[in-house]
Amino acid sequence: MAVEREDAAATAAGEDQEQRAQREREREEEEEVLIPPLNFSMVDEGVFRSGYPHPSNFPFLHTLHLRSIVYLCPEPYSELYMEFLKKHGIKLFHHGIEGTKEPFVDIPVNVIKEALKVVLDKRNHPVLIHCKKGKHRTGCLMGCLRKVQNFSLTSIFDEYQRFAGTKARVSDQQFIELFDVSSFKRNGRSWTCTCTCQCKKHLVRVHSTTYTFSSEETNGTCSKDSNNCLTIG
Amino acid sequence: MAVEREDAAATAAGEDQEQRAQREREREEEEEVLIPPLNFSMVDEGVFRSGYPHPSNFPFLHTLHLRSIVYLCPEPYSELYMEFLKKHGIKLFHHGIEGTKEPFVDIPVNVIKEALKVVLDKRNHPVLIHCKKGKHRTGCLMGCLRKVQNFSLTSIFDEYQRFAGTKARVSDQQFIELFDVSSFKRNGRSWTCTCTCQCKKHLVRVHSTTYTFSSEETNGTCSKDSNNCLTIG
Repeated sequence: MAVEREDAAATAAGEDQEQRAQREREREEEEEVLIPPLNFSMVDEGVFRSGYPHPSNFPFLHTLHLRSIVYLCPEPYSELYMEFLKKHGIKLFHHGIEGTKEPFVDIPVNVIKEALKVVLDKRNHPVLIHCKKGKHRTGCLMGCLRKVQNFSLTSIFDEYQRFAGTKARVSDQQFIELFDVSSFKRNGRSWTCTCTCQCKKHLVRVHSTTYTFSSEETNGTCSKDSNNCLTIG
Repeated sequence: MAVEREDAAATAAGEDQEQRAQREREREEEEEVLIPPLNFSMVDEGVFRSGYPHPSNFPFLHTLHLRSIVYLCPEPYSELYMEFLKKHGIKLFHHGIEGTKEPFVDIPVNVIKEALKVVLDKRNHPVLIHCKKGKHRTGCLMGCLRKVQNFSLTSIFDEYQRFAGTKARVSDQQFIELFDVSSFKRNGRSWTCTCTCQCKKHLVRVHSTTYTFSSEETNGTCSKDSNNCLTIG
């Protein structure tokens, strides 16, 4: 009996210790100062933009629960950064664009198109788009995204300038103006209607419209992110 | 029989006409240029900020499906704007703050606290916060929100300056630095963990943590917005 009591006391003490440690961890997590990357902002549901993340930004990035990153510089990532992506299962889409200065800028249309496809595909969300400073390359891609969303050019340029500041480039804005989004329209619109089904197995009610996904888009598995699905019929 | 055929033909023609009209409406909606208000941005899941909306921004605002607006100027809304809110069932939280210039600025702490409570309450989301230019009053409130979210002061000021531009005020940044968020911490953290249950009747799994709502927070009805709920047990 004495041994049993001792065991019980030891277990209780162990639980207490564990609970205390858990509370301590939660308190620390609550108190942790979060440092978003340079020029960080939420663009839309599941889409973020920023400059190049520093290791001090990793705890913040972790809170975004990213599924993928679109990286727009040609240089490879550091080992530390690659480790962070691997640890958190974040997929990297590397669409490198040289960061040349005006008037030698020549943003490659095809690279922006490929990157835009990735951004518009909700299966990649939450996604972070970044280059070095989050001004020019990221600004161009985000401007093209806003065109798909039918934003007026004035408001697109206003947003571009908010992030580029005194480094705003006329050539970037010219690129955005001339970028042809006709092939992206349908995709973009359905996304901007906050169609949040990830599993693509259900009909999804998006505001007043009902969309169904074609069988070629169906990936066959229902992920945890399909909580917004309304299965119909 | 001839009459029946005529009726059927007329019905078919009517349907065709209706379908065409519907397609035309959809096409027009797809092509409509959207104009966000001055200084518009998404702050976080369900939270937006901007300057004072102009009637030309109404079609864009409609796409946000706002549940409420936090308005920070003391002047009453125009009739046109009130009509827009009424038509779309948007609740107005009016927390007026005088827009005096530095060094006579005296942002009232209590008004910001009341406004922040509204912003942190997910039942009011999606919510748009705006003043006149979306720079100072909105910037102060958003800075306080970022403090609740544990953002570093450097990144809070960086964001403040992005919207205030050359009109950035040291006094606003001083206000944000001194603002005490200790009473908001718990609420803010659970929100930033994208805890999206609106009905408050369920346990909600938020990433790795499970939260339960106290009975005084339970409103007893399960709204349509509870699709993210994971009912446990």
